Amino acid sequence: MEKKVSASVINRLPRYYRYLTDLMESGIERISSKELSERMCVTASQIRQDLNCFGGFGQQGYGYNVKHLHSEIAKILGLDRGYTAVLVGAGNMGRTFAMNTKFESRGFKLIGIFDIDPNKIGKEINGVEVMDYALIRSFIKKYKPKMAILTVPKTAIHAVAEELIGYGIKAFLNFSYTELSAAEDIAVENVHLSDSLMRLSYKILEHE
Amino acid sequence: MEKKVSASVINRLPRYYRYLTDLMESGIERISSKELSERMCVTASQIRQDLNCFGGFGQQGYGYNVKHLHSEIAKILGLDRGYTAVLVGAGNMGRTFAMNTKFESRGFKLIGIFDIDPNKIGKEINGVEVMDYALIRSFIKKYKPKMAILTVPKTAIHAVAEELIGYGIKAFLNFSYTELSAAEDIAVENVHLSDSLMRLSYKILEHE
Repeated sequence: MEKKVSASVINRLPRYYRYLTDLMESGIERISSKELSERMCVTASQIRQDLNCFGGFGQQGYGYNVKHLHSEIAKILGLDRGYTAVLVGAGNMGRTFAMNTKFESRGFKLIGIFDIDPNKIGKEINGVEVMDYALIRSFIKKYKPKMAILTVPKTAIHAVAEELIGYGIKAFLNFSYTELSAAEDIAVENVHLSDSLMRLSYKILEHE
Repeated sequence: MEKKVSASVINRLPRYYRYLTDLMESGIERISSKELSERMCVTASQIRQDLNCFGGFGQQGYGYNVKHLHSEIAKILGLDRGYTAVLVGAGNMGRTFAMNTKFESRGFKLIGIFDIDPNKIGKEINGVEVMDYALIRSFIKKYKPKMAILTVPKTAIHAVAEELIGYGIKAFLNFSYTELSAAEDIAVENVHLSDSLMRLSYKILEHE
């Protein structure tokens, strides 16, 4: 697993993971690259190429052992580490993300939600209580979450990120519609929902 | 613009578009690739390479004309077409997407929101009324939206997509946590929020 894997392969791994989870939940124990390719709507050779990056988990004439492949991809993505997360910003986006994300089945645990709005503090979202942002420092010191999901307004993002970095957070999932630039030792994944609309627009043109 | 452009360049164009929009809004008329690269946290050579795919819009010693580059990227992405969209599913995800997406400033128009829940029908989200899904057929026949944003449950996605394809919709933005496979003449962009969490997890491992 020492070989450097390309970003585009890494980007596809969560998708493999999702499909393999579905297969496991349906009780399917093994699958050929042809069957997997039909389900995932990619070519079988793409699948073989992608999975070969990690030494390949398939066997000629047998296909892939679903459970084994699932657990190997989980390891590659770090889903076996049990990373914990806090979410900052209990507005629409934060609420939706907290409610729609299968944290536990993806190997994560959402341990705290924070906001500054007194109307939100004390309410529960998906079983997790919204706490006062003023308490986040002591919470982080105590529970040492590995990542912070930031669903705060664009104007607040840099101040919040800097503050949390000061408390020792080194990984951010950023929904704030602005890129969060990262120092060397900070991991950042920026999510821009409206980019997907622009990509669809480009695909419409391609189809015309 | 006839040359085939790689998917990874296309994937980065919405980001250029966002940054250029911000620059325009700040009244900045031109920018060097060095300045742009610092703002966007990518290398200047990456920027030059990406924009060269489209013939390059920069001039030696001058940099890029922000407004010109902005409008050229808009054209490449089809943002100058005034594409209209309907949104199906006014739950958390639909509501968040409708409220947080800058449709108009990205060249789109959200013209209708549909749901089957009587508690949601008749309410407004971001100035657009939620209508009864039973009326979508006549709405589409009348207003001919170019795309449908699907924020319905995973179990409903295939039936809804098939129905809308029957009414003439050929482009889908799919938030349903399952891949929507597409026939040749249908454009699909699948969005999976929890994939971003898995990608961040991988980045944490890389930083360790």
